[in-house]
Amino acid sequence: MSWAALLDYAAVLVFALTGALAASRAQLDIVGFAFVACLTGVGGGTLRDVLLDRDPVFWIAEPLYIAVAVLGAVAVFFTAHLMESRYRWLTWLDAFALAVAVPAGVSLAVATEQSGPVIIIMGMVTGCLGGLMRDVVCNEVPLVLKQGELYASAALAGAGGAVVALAAGLGEGMALVICGAVTLALRAGSIIFGWRLPVYKARPPRV
Amino acid sequence: MSWAALLDYAAVLVFALTGALAASRAQLDIVGFAFVACLTGVGGGTLRDVLLDRDPVFWIAEPLYIAVAVLGAVAVFFTAHLMESRYRWLTWLDAFALAVAVPAGVSLAVATEQSGPVIIIMGMVTGCLGGLMRDVVCNEVPLVLKQGELYASAALAGAGGAVVALAAGLGEGMALVICGAVTLALRAGSIIFGWRLPVYKARPPRV
Amino acid sequence: MSWAALLDYAAVLVFALTGALAASRAQLDIVGFAFVACLTGVGGGTLRDVLLDRDPVFWIAEPLYIAVAVLGAVAVFFTAHLMESRYRWLTWLDAFALAVAVPAGVSLAVATEQSGPVIIIMGMVTGCLGGLMRDVVCNEVPLVLKQGELYASAALAGAGGAVVALAAGLGEGMALVICGAVTLALRAGSIIFGWRLPVYKARPPRV
Repeated sequence: MSWAALLDYAAVLVFALTGALAASRAQLDIVGFAFVACLTGVGGGTLRDVLLDRDPVFWIAEPLYIAVAVLGAVAVFFTAHLMESRYRWLTWLDAFALAVAVPAGVSLAVATEQSGPVIIIMGMVTGCLGGLMRDVVCNEVPLVLKQGELYASAALAGAGGAVVALAAGLGEGMALVICGAVTLALRAGSIIFGWRLPVYKARPPRV
Repeated sequence: MSWAALLDYAAVLVFALTGALAASRAQLDIVGFAFVACLTGVGGGTLRDVLLDRDPVFWIAEPLYIAVAVLGAVAVFFTAHLMESRYRWLTWLDAFALAVAVPAGVSLAVATEQSGPVIIIMGMVTGCLGGLMRDVVCNEVPLVLKQGELYASAALAGAGGAVVALAAGLGEGMALVICGAVTLALRAGSIIFGWRLPVYKARPPRV
Repeated sequence: MSWAALLDYAAVLVFALTGALAASRAQLDIVGFAFVACLTGVGGGTLRDVLLDRDPVFWIAEPLYIAVAVLGAVAVFFTAHLMESRYRWLTWLDAFALAVAVPAGVSLAVATEQSGPVIIIMGMVTGCLGGLMRDVVCNEVPLVLKQGELYASAALAGAGGAVVALAAGLGEGMALVICGAVTLALRAGSIIFGWRLPVYKARPPRV
């Protein structure tokens, strides 16, 4: 199993769990859980594959991905009431999924020999877009656009780190580990310690 | 004309009518009617074609689909004021469109020899996504995610029924009829009798 | 450099500026500015390329487009506070971007020898969809769906004008100039003079 496939499975599962948690907050039925879990789990990777014109899309070639997302949704449907704070679980699982999905996107872009900027964008698309679809469909405030959180920034730094590591001659496995570690460290730091970039603050009132 | 093409025309027309009704609720002008009607009418099928990397997309190969959607929008623009409850018409037309679009998606996936899970997903994508786009753009509560309604579930059951029928050796035409009938029966039962799956109910308050 | 490429660069830059202005209204950080600027700048053209199955998508073939969008975002991040009314700038820049992006879409559709209706739709998709994504993600009222504004209508008239000009035997350059001029004239007239199409008005109350 290639790096990209392994990372894809992990990202699909963890993102599916976050999708199911969002479905539990919207009080959907079990099919709704599976629907949002699949959307979140494969959404980012699907967009990546469509943009790279990869044929077939990864979960059409191997429907096991869908089974993984559905099983994750079913598990959450029957256990979510055991959690104390579902939003906190959602935030943290989403952080781990991000730290897996960004290297998954990077890995595939490297395998298809894209240029540096495209590698970085594919990492960000794979990492950020599934969660964005989840939040738009479930009417949550998109995590990716929350003020003063490192999210797209964490993905950017992780994917950028991988490109630098590859350019420095490190192996792909090492570059992907760096990518995931940088992403997770920045995202976790933002959740725990409130790390943030300065936001735009207009002097005149918003018109 | 193939099964898929026939079903596609019917689904495009009926979904376009629902799109135009949504546009009338948002009080758009006639170009806005046509815009939302086209988005709703061809949205689900377009996503299906992009995912299956079908080239060209069905309405690019045959722009008559667009003409059908636009004519439907114009007809609604001049007649919607005659309806007593536009939302009721929207709901019921949407149910019929769903019952046509799911077999349309199934039929195309069968024609391109996809696996069972992919056939089911293509049925659901073709059936559910055009209406979802309509509701997101027009700022309605997405029908597909309304609590305690069979919608994605009806599409799932219909597409699943078709896969079972095909596996049991029935012909494609019969399988598609079963698919549409199951979808329509469940969706109509949900609208009329309030059929529903149990929704997730958390004991602790939503945090 | 082809007409399509030149128009694409201009449309990407001006749409990116509008995306960055929307990001400033949502008070994002600098990475958020770049994210929304890229989404708005390349969103419409990307959808056009995916629909036409153009491989690779324009900014994957030439990442300079992304650099242009990012630079525009950075420039806005440091200068937006100098503007008196950011929303007014956003509206007007968006009008210019529309008047450049519609001919960009038309030009590419002509280059790939599409039929008249498909040429018109590609012009509208390229012109309208990037801004729609911006408004959905940033939670603004979509400009394209504002009641009583010529927006999709302006794009439709511009793209239709280009098709008529081509059918009348005019050269492509002239047809694209007509396309942009008609689009800009109608959009600007709508902003300044309130030009509008009659909207749908139901007699019975909205149900």
